Parts: sequence; C-alpha cells; structure tokens
Amino acid sequence: MNYRQESLKRHAEWRGKIETVSRVPVDSREALSLAYTPGVAESCLAIQADPEKSFTLTRRWNTVPVITDGTAVLGLGDIGPEAGMPVMEGKCALFKAYGNVDAFPLCLRTKDTEEIIRTIKLLAGSFGGINLEDIASPRCFEIESRLKAELDIPVFHDDQHGTAIVTAAALLNALKLAGKTLEQIRLVINGPGAAGTAITKFLLAMGARDVIVCDERGALVEGDGTLPPTKAELARLTNRRMVQGTLADAMRGADVLIGVSAAHCVTKEMVAAMAEKAILFVCANPVPEIEPQDALAAGAYIVGTGSSEHPNQINNVLVFPGLFRGALDVGARTINTEMMQAAAQSIAAYVRPGALTPQYILPPAYDKGVHQAVAGAVAAAAVRTGVARHAAG
Amino acid sequence: MNYRQESLKRHAEWRGKIETVSRVPVDSREALSLAYTPGVAESCLAIQADPEKSFTLTRRWNTVPVITDGTAVLGLGDIGPEAGMPVMEGKCALFKAYGNVDAFPLCLRTKDTEEIIRTIKLLAGSFGGINLEDIASPRCFEIESRLKAELDIPVFHDDQHGTAIVTAAALLNALKLAGKTLEQIRLVINGPGAAGTAITKFLLAMGARDVIVCDERGALVEGDGTLPPTKAELARLTNRRMVQGTLADAMRGADVLIGVSAAHCVTKEMVAAMAEKAILFVCANPVPEIEPQDALAAGAYIVGTGSSEHPNQINNVLVFPGLFRGALDVGARTINTEMMQAAAQSIAAYVRPGALTPQYILPPAYDKGVHQAVAGAVAAAAVRTGVARHAAG
Repeated sequence: MNYRQESLKRHAEWRGKIETVSRVPVDSREALSLAYTPGVAESCLAIQADPEKSFTLTRRWNTVPVITDGTAVLGLGDIGPEAGMPVMEGKCALFKAYGNVDAFPLCLRTKDTEEIIRTIKLLAGSFGGINLEDIASPRCFEIESRLKAELDIPVFHDDQHGTAIVTAAALLNALKLAGKTLEQIRLVINGPGAAGTAITKFLLAMGARDVIVCDERGALVEGDGTLPPTKAELARLTNRRMVQGTLADAMRGADVLIGVSAAHCVTKEMVAAMAEKAILFVCANPVPEIEPQDALAAGAYIVGTGSSEHPNQINNVLVFPGLFRGALDVGARTINTEMMQAAAQSIAAYVRPGALTPQYILPPAYDKGVHQAVAGAVAAAAVRTGVARHAAG
Repeated sequence: MNYRQESLKRHAEWRGKIETVSRVPVDSREALSLAYTPGVAESCLAIQADPEKSFTLTRRWNTVPVITDGTAVLGLGDIGPEAGMPVMEGKCALFKAYGNVDAFPLCLRTKDTEEIIRTIKLLAGSFGGINLEDIASPRCFEIESRLKAELDIPVFHDDQHGTAIVTAAALLNALKLAGKTLEQIRLVINGPGAAGTAITKFLLAMGARDVIVCDERGALVEGDGTLPPTKAELARLTNRRMVQGTLADAMRGADVLIGVSAAHCVTKEMVAAMAEKAILFVCANPVPEIEPQDALAAGAYIVGTGSSEHPNQINNVLVFPGLFRGALDVGARTINTEMMQAAAQSIAAYVRPGALTPQYILPPAYDKGVHQAVAGAVAAAAVRTGVARHAAG
C-alpha cells in the first residue's frame, strides 16, 4: 500500500481524527438546570474558593493540549501551524486510544519563544498537563524549561523526552541480549538536536558513563570555544576520554550508536569498526543513518529505526499515552526524571525475557497493555517522589 | 430540587462534562501508518501548499473554542478563569448536543484586552470559529470587534449577540400576539452593558425606530458630555425624541421594556404606566428587574425572564448551537447581521402561530428541531451574503 496517498484519501473522508463529545444529559429542562444554569453556579463558586477543585469538578484533571508552532513537524521541518494539525490530531487520537487522555490540538501562529511561553501560561488553568510537540531546537529547550519551572502541572516535550525514554527502553533490552550493561558500554550519540540532547542527558541519568556526542563536524569536546551553548553543555557532560575526530573516529570500538541525525551518514566500514555485538539505533526520519540490512551485513547485532517498515521501531508512541495517564491519575505537579525512568523500565520489562530477540526488543505501540504498565509505573514514581497531588484512583 | 446543591454533587461525579474522543482506528500497524506516521505527512504537505485545506483534512471545520477570561461569569462576576470552567464546559456540551459542534473550553489567565486578542489570534488557525464568553464589558467590545476585523473565521460574543438574537426572536413573537410591529412601538432598554448594547443595535437593524436606552441614572441623551464612549454612541443611535429623566419617565407609554440591568429596579407603578398590551423582558440574573407575577398584576401582557423557573425563558442556548452549525456548514468567514437576523427569525417562526400564547413565545432550548431550523437559515444567509467558503453539505 502507498501509505501516504491512501492516508491523504482517508483524511479527506475522516474530516478530522478527533471530536469533542458531551458526557452529560441535556435533553430536558431539569437536565439543563443541573449541567448548565442555574445549577452550575455552585461548582463555579466552589472552584473560586479553592482553584484546586478545578481538578475534580471539571475535565481539567484528564485534559492535555498537544501544542506546536509547526516548526519541526515529522521530518518535514517548518511547515506552519495549520499544516502541523494532522500530526497533532493523530497524536490526540493516540492519547485517547492508548491512554484515555482527553488531548486537544493547538497550533500556534507564532515562532517567538516568549510569546509561546506566555500563551501556554495563559492557557494552563484549563489543563492537567502540557504536551509540547514538534517545536524546533533550540527554542524548545527554553520553552520547556521555563514552563516546567513556572507551572504546577506536568510539562513534557515529547520530541525530547518521549524519544529519550523509548530509546532508553530499547537500549535496556538490547543490552540484555548483548550481555552488556549501561555502565560499561561505550556509547556514541550522533545529532545533538532536541532528541539527541535529551537522550544524552537521560542515559547519563540512567547510569551511562562513556558517552560521546557528535555533530556533523565530529565529537564534541569540552573546551572547544566554537561550540554554541547547548553543544558546549553536552561536551561538558560527556566525552571524559576527550576523544577528538569524526563520527567514524568516535564509533571505533563503540558498543552502541544512537543516530538522530541525517540520512546515510554512517557507512558499513564504520559499523564494522564497532565492538562485538554492536547495537545501532538509526532513527533519522524518514531515511536512517544507514539502511538496516547494510548495518547487519557489516556485523551489527541489533538494529532499530524510527520506521515501522523495519523490525525494532523506536517509536515514542510507546511513551506519551501511558506517561500522561500515570501523571494525571495522581494529579502530578511535574514529570521528573524518576517518572521518566519508571516509564523506560516498564516499557523494557513489558517484553518478557523469553520473547526478547535481536529483531524484537520493543512491544508494538498498539499493544494496550504496555501503556497500562507505563501508567502504573509512572503514577507510583510520582507518588514515591512526592510530586503527586493524591493517590491513584 | 435544590438545583445548585444537586448540580455540585453531579459535577463531582461527572468529573467533566465533555471529553475528546478518537474518530479513527489506531489498533494495528497499518492503521497507525494511515492515521499517524508515515502516512499523515501527505496531509501536512497538502495543507502547507494550501492552508485552506485545513478545513477539509482536519477537524478545524467543526471546531470552536469557548473562550473566557472568567470576568463576567453568569451573574457571579469576576470569579477567575478556573472557576469559569464549569460554565464553559456546560456550553461545550450544549454545542455538541444541539449543534454537533466540537466545542472546547479555554479559560485565559489574563484580563488584558491586548493579550486576550493576541492569544486568540495565535490560536485561530486551529479553529473554524471563535465563541467569546463571559468577558466583562467594555473590554468585550474591543476584543470582539478587533478579532472580527482581523480573522477570517466567525467571531461571536455570545453574551452580546446571542442575547440580542434570542431577545429579538422573543420580541417578534410577543409583538405578533400584541398586534404591534417593531417599526411602530416605543421600546425602552434598561442596562447599557454588553447585552443591552448589542440588543439595542440589533433591534435597530431589525427595524425598531423609537428606542430609549437607560442606565442607572436614566435615559441616555445625545450631547450629554458626561457619558463614556460606549454610552455616548448608544445615545447618538437612539432617543430621537430626546426624552430626559429616569427609567420611570422613559417607560411611561412604552410598549416594551427590555431589562438587562439589576434586581427589582422596576415597580408595579412603572409597569402600570406603560402602553396597552405591554411586553416586559426582565432578564437580570438571577433576580429579575420585577417579579413576573408583580408585572402581570400591574397589567403587563407578556413577561419573559432569563430564568427557567418562569414561562418565557429568554435563553441564548436557543441561538449559539444552530448559529455556529449553520456558519460552519458553509465555512463562513464571519457572522454578519443578516445571519443573526436569520437566526432570530427562524427561532420566532419555529413556534407555529397556533401554539403562540402570552406564556409561550419561545420553544424550549432542548427541542433539537429549533437548532436545525436556525442552522439552515444561518447557512442560507451566509451563502446569500457572500461570506460562505462553500455551499452546505
């Protein structure tokens, strides 16, 4: 099937992938008086007296906007807010189907960092959490960190942290098969954008020690005065062996390559020079850093990509529905590293050891059980770390 | 039943009166590839090439935010954005049940006119129309007129124009019973706020000629230098006889009083001094300008209120679902006076002449037929006046 042409045809038939429905009867004078005026005034006054009651008397507790400025949509780049909407709607449909989260797409007609922050802050009282989506780097870092600091509901930039969590889950399972541990491996991450930066920091928090981050010029090294601030920070956090040189130099002897960079920038020779049982997650979209069959032919042990057309799709659809479900279930005030680690570990653990093979390191995204597992683990982590408003259920 | 206490209990059980649902299958790899990546990219590119396609490839065509700043909620006043949410959610439930419009509540944490305008403009690409709600006067005028001028989708402030339309519909039917016409009556409007201003302008557009607007000091008269701009404008548009004095002076000999003002500011004596077959719409909320039984005892012919506890509730729930349904069905670029007149006339005409009595001048809001009638009339008016993107259906 030509998915893109067939999808366009379906979109024209669907005329929207989500809709809003009523949960209450309004078919009589009495029903109207309870759901609307005059009865509704009592709930308004209760929330005025205690704004936290907006989490129990309205849908706020279960509602999350999927917000974009349309500047980094899929691999398509800056296509504008209206053109981003099909992706945002799709994400909302997945939020509901897999996490029973009421997600609503909002595409903003601005690319100004301060204006995006201000707009989301003005809207925050209507929502139980905020999902940032497809906002270009580096402005996505400032937007997310400022909103996390200034709001008391979870703020999550999926392109950063959803990708980091699912990549960590895939890596945990790949390492089990390879008989290696995060603490002992040599890890190369190619592409210090939004996803690469988040993956790097998250894997360090998970226990990785020997990490080299590369950009198109090669390994980032601390002290290189030509690096912009976000890359300089990555250089400070990584590359303790101070390796210099190209991506090929960095990959020599490495156990793992995680690519979130550009099409076909990795050669068979570079794969052949990696360590035994090499793991490659080549997630450039839509064309990976190296074709999986080429990586395997060059000796790779496990290969994952961003695409559903190959085994081991590293797909952040595995993360966000359960992550928000768990956070919302306990009224979490934030999403912290412990909650993200719990998500990664629960995704990895969902594949039973007997089922794990080099071609099967992650469950499919449409398996609803994995989202329930993530939700439970995330909710528990929120309660354990003291960021929950209340217990689950 | 104590509606307010029972309603609070129900709200705590409902935990939200609306929710967002998925309209597409996402339960297999193939389904995911069509609704989400990689297939979705084709719809994104189609909209990037022609942003108008966002009305056919996404839910934009049917989606309207109910936006408030929480400053004029019901009769409760400035209760804040979170506390406004139960009303906004209720309105969204009604939009869906009566108009099949996908409405979504957004409560903004600002009272700044420019910031509200800017925020809504940034969000407008996600919506097919904008419903402004419970924003205090006079800032609501500036917000609505600026957005109407600057956006190419319908912008509608329900507290102004929904109230004006349903009041006009009620008046058309009351005048039929009284054997009078809009052109010949003497009309007094008490309360030059958001609703009173819109009612005044709309009834003038519908054909009313002898209109006096009063505030708490009495009749507004052109040339009074103490009047603020919005009242000065009303004075210029009305009171051609240059009547001076109190509300009681203005009401002497009047055929119609429309009150959108304050509790119990009208006496039996003032009603008794009106013309034969006097019509009073006393819509102050929650306590009317005069109790209906007192007005009737003083000789009034027809009395309407804003409350469901009396006959003739003048309820703008009769307007907004069908009005937006009609506007969205033809991709209207605005809501103009002709569309509003069509709405008023279709609501009035929905009560068949044989059914019309002084106690029954409007259909109940939960009668779905009236909303269909409004939608059809509004869509036709939009096409006729050249503001429709396309024909209905």
